[in-house]
Amino acid sequence: MWTLESIAKHIDGIVKGDKTYQVGSIATLESAHSQQISFLANPKYKKYLVNTKAGAVIVHSEMASAVPNQAIVVDDPYIAYAKTASLLNPVELGQQGIHSRAYVSSDSDIHPTACIGAQVVIESGVVIAEGVVIGPGCVLQQGVKVGKNTRLVANITLCVKVQIGQRVIIHPGVVIGADGFGIANDKGKWIKVPQLGSVIVGNDVEIGANTTIDKGAIENTIIGTGVKLDNQIQIAHNVVIGEHTVIAGCAGIAGSTQIGKYCIIGGGVAISGHLTICDRVQLTGMTMVTKSITTSGSYSSGIPAEPTKQWHRSVVRYRQMDKLADRVKRLEVKNKPLT
Amino acid sequence: MWTLESIAKHIDGIVKGDKTYQVGSIATLESAHSQQISFLANPKYKKYLVNTKAGAVIVHSEMASAVPNQAIVVDDPYIAYAKTASLLNPVELGQQGIHSRAYVSSDSDIHPTACIGAQVVIESGVVIAEGVVIGPGCVLQQGVKVGKNTRLVANITLCVKVQIGQRVIIHPGVVIGADGFGIANDKGKWIKVPQLGSVIVGNDVEIGANTTIDKGAIENTIIGTGVKLDNQIQIAHNVVIGEHTVIAGCAGIAGSTQIGKYCIIGGGVAISGHLTICDRVQLTGMTMVTKSITTSGSYSSGIPAEPTKQWHRSVVRYRQMDKLADRVKRLEVKNKPLT
Amino acid sequence: MWTLESIAKHIDGIVKGDKTYQVGSIATLESAHSQQISFLANPKYKKYLVNTKAGAVIVHSEMASAVPNQAIVVDDPYIAYAKTASLLNPVELGQQGIHSRAYVSSDSDIHPTACIGAQVVIESGVVIAEGVVIGPGCVLQQGVKVGKNTRLVANITLCVKVQIGQRVIIHPGVVIGADGFGIANDKGKWIKVPQLGSVIVGNDVEIGANTTIDKGAIENTIIGTGVKLDNQIQIAHNVVIGEHTVIAGCAGIAGSTQIGKYCIIGGGVAISGHLTICDRVQLTGMTMVTKSITTSGSYSSGIPAEPTKQWHRSVVRYRQMDKLADRVKRLEVKNKPLT
Repeated sequence: MWTLESIAKHIDGIVKGDKTYQVGSIATLESAHSQQISFLANPKYKKYLVNTKAGAVIVHSEMASAVPNQAIVVDDPYIAYAKTASLLNPVELGQQGIHSRAYVSSDSDIHPTACIGAQVVIESGVVIAEGVVIGPGCVLQQGVKVGKNTRLVANITLCVKVQIGQRVIIHPGVVIGADGFGIANDKGKWIKVPQLGSVIVGNDVEIGANTTIDKGAIENTIIGTGVKLDNQIQIAHNVVIGEHTVIAGCAGIAGSTQIGKYCIIGGGVAISGHLTICDRVQLTGMTMVTKSITTSGSYSSGIPAEPTKQWHRSVVRYRQMDKLADRVKRLEVKNKPLT
Repeated sequence: MWTLESIAKHIDGIVKGDKTYQVGSIATLESAHSQQISFLANPKYKKYLVNTKAGAVIVHSEMASAVPNQAIVVDDPYIAYAKTASLLNPVELGQQGIHSRAYVSSDSDIHPTACIGAQVVIESGVVIAEGVVIGPGCVLQQGVKVGKNTRLVANITLCVKVQIGQRVIIHPGVVIGADGFGIANDKGKWIKVPQLGSVIVGNDVEIGANTTIDKGAIENTIIGTGVKLDNQIQIAHNVVIGEHTVIAGCAGIAGSTQIGKYCIIGGGVAISGHLTICDRVQLTGMTMVTKSITTSGSYSSGIPAEPTKQWHRSVVRYRQMDKLADRVKRLEVKNKPLT
Repeated sequence: MWTLESIAKHIDGIVKGDKTYQVGSIATLESAHSQQISFLANPKYKKYLVNTKAGAVIVHSEMASAVPNQAIVVDDPYIAYAKTASLLNPVELGQQGIHSRAYVSSDSDIHPTACIGAQVVIESGVVIAEGVVIGPGCVLQQGVKVGKNTRLVANITLCVKVQIGQRVIIHPGVVIGADGFGIANDKGKWIKVPQLGSVIVGNDVEIGANTTIDKGAIENTIIGTGVKLDNQIQIAHNVVIGEHTVIAGCAGIAGSTQIGKYCIIGGGVAISGHLTICDRVQLTGMTMVTKSITTSGSYSSGIPAEPTKQWHRSVVRYRQMDKLADRVKRLEVKNKPLT
């Protein structure tokens, strides 16, 4: 249990009501009970405020008077909620040391404060810093380095020589450092281009479930500090992702493309290879990027759903655009004498 | 080997020919031999019926006279084939009990009839019901619950507190309950929004290889009873999928979207976050959904392939649509006096 | 270290300069030092040639005079680079034999030259040929067969009866032989259609991280010799992929589709089920294929990104195409008397 005072201190807020009031967990306005704290960030949920059973609610000052019980007043309730949730739900790190069912090469360097889970494989030359958690079923191949307080949840594969920064979170099924898709056509037959680079992941990165990041062909693939990647993203060899860029699920970035800092890339976006995307570019979901982008701002493509019958007509019309343009041109010629 | 009588009883059909005739397996009309049973469901394959070597064929009554050997006459040959295939190919469950190479926390509750495979990790507080199969390499984190007769094939990760119903089938590489993609921008820096909910999967669900289903932010992500998910689907936090909805491979559903019952969602479909899709909606492959759908029926988007040269022209024309509309408007103005 | 003479012999080239000069590794023109070899394949990098510190450079004869140190002259520098990189970076195979932390069924057949890694599971009836490497965490279910010198990197799942050819490379997270997405609607309820086929992968295939290939429904799913698959590709049941076809990341191929030989399929391409794509078809990235393709050549679809404001206008115009065509038609009627 936490006093509202201690929470307010953590989120830089002001308590309205009983500062010594205690809450133990966080819940929505609708479902919270008296020993829980809630928050109002999205105006859409304002209607639930008046009847909430929450012992306390994190709100903006404009809403403080409408809170039925205690309030903690802050500038940005969503950020404050995120910080409160982190405070009330510290990550459970498991037991320090090496699980009896893990296999750890004698030729590796594991910090005694690290936690190595069951069925883990750690090959030779691996270096694990202090406070690292390697969850069950992970495989760390030769020469992998993992920075302080980084956490691999479970069933993750880090291939040869991959380097992970500090305070990184990697979710299950992620594969980092597999061979890039390098092939060359030798008289009709595809031969493999050996992939000799690696992957360098910066600090404070988060990588979602089943995302894949390939090693570079000669140089490295680089994921900048503070980058946040959702699930099932594919990042090809030699891609560089600038600091604090975020990418939503199912996006794919082809080889050697460089993405700037502070970009926001939507779900299912596909970016061709060998492009440069400048800083602070936003791409809405399913956008198809085939050329470099040199001006920051928001870009989109794709046509949203319509009833299937209309879609069939639309596709037919789309196919006729060329002819339609010709017909308009002919009309313009005919209409010239009229001007 | 099974007599045709016993199969007919299972699929509610009538044997034409020798009821005591025995078959051991199922095959296509073209490849079947005399100790196999086949079926005709798709009229396209009618041509193979007359020469089939199959000992018996499952058919609709209209086709019964064309079957060269025994027939089993049913109302729906495809359903009857599915049921026959299940009868003739019972799932092999492996050996009951805990494999010597599995790690099972002493603080878990494993039913003695369950089968726990090699290299499995079962953490504390996990509850496994009767008849459950946990295949090799699976990781079940703290507090996971798995219902009766559910089968996890191999290398699956169920994160903290995930709840799986009865008779569920989960294929390899699936990750359920990883953190949702919750981030908040705190003065230019992305901070993590802790993901406190879980995932609840109903009964009779099937989940394809490498599909990911994230845990909810505060409340749960919910997969309804009878839902069937193909491979490599991404389901974000707080999504709710209604009962008996089916989703084909590579679809992605963004956060907090609610999908109705009995929907059929095609491969590669992308659905934005915070939408509501009503019951009995069909979305054809690669459809991009950016708004809620409130009327059942079929919806589509996307333009199918054309030769690349024409595609280049089409894209140019598409970019000129705005100007083309203006040109038509000018022509209409000029043509007004003519009316 | 390798003499230039030995490298030249391997890549069918001619040394200009000191044939006994030795290099140990490969690097880019910009980063190479004197004990490294580099190459010039892309004319874009010509500018780096004159100042390179590389001890030797692989070039076309046209460029030989511009190389500051030794050169190896070849017909195709990119192919020569690929072969040199393979020569200088032989794959490390790990230790022959079965790791003490692997579980191998006594009822399997493992060649003594094979290397079976830690935390591997090999079930009964599995046959592993000579020189095979099964990396850590892999699961090979009953009856799987793996051909000579094939390498599974780590955390891969091969389901029941899957057959893999010779010299195949499979990257982490791949799932081969999971059940295809076979369901049938039995009076409103989806029932499972048992998947009885398997997957047959030819020789010299490479399969990227987290790619999934489902088993066939009755017959087999087939991946032809020399096929190269990138990451996160989904291949559904009964698909047949012709020899030497290459497919880039995130592509999806629906059930029963047959793809010809020597096709090149871009990233994110989606191909519907039950189609036939003939030999030597190229599909550019994100193309949506809904009909069979019977003429070789390049095909495309999808509209590339534009600024979001313009995109909103474009979508509106797209929706108005039908009306625009009507308006043009009316103008044509009015303009008829003028001809």
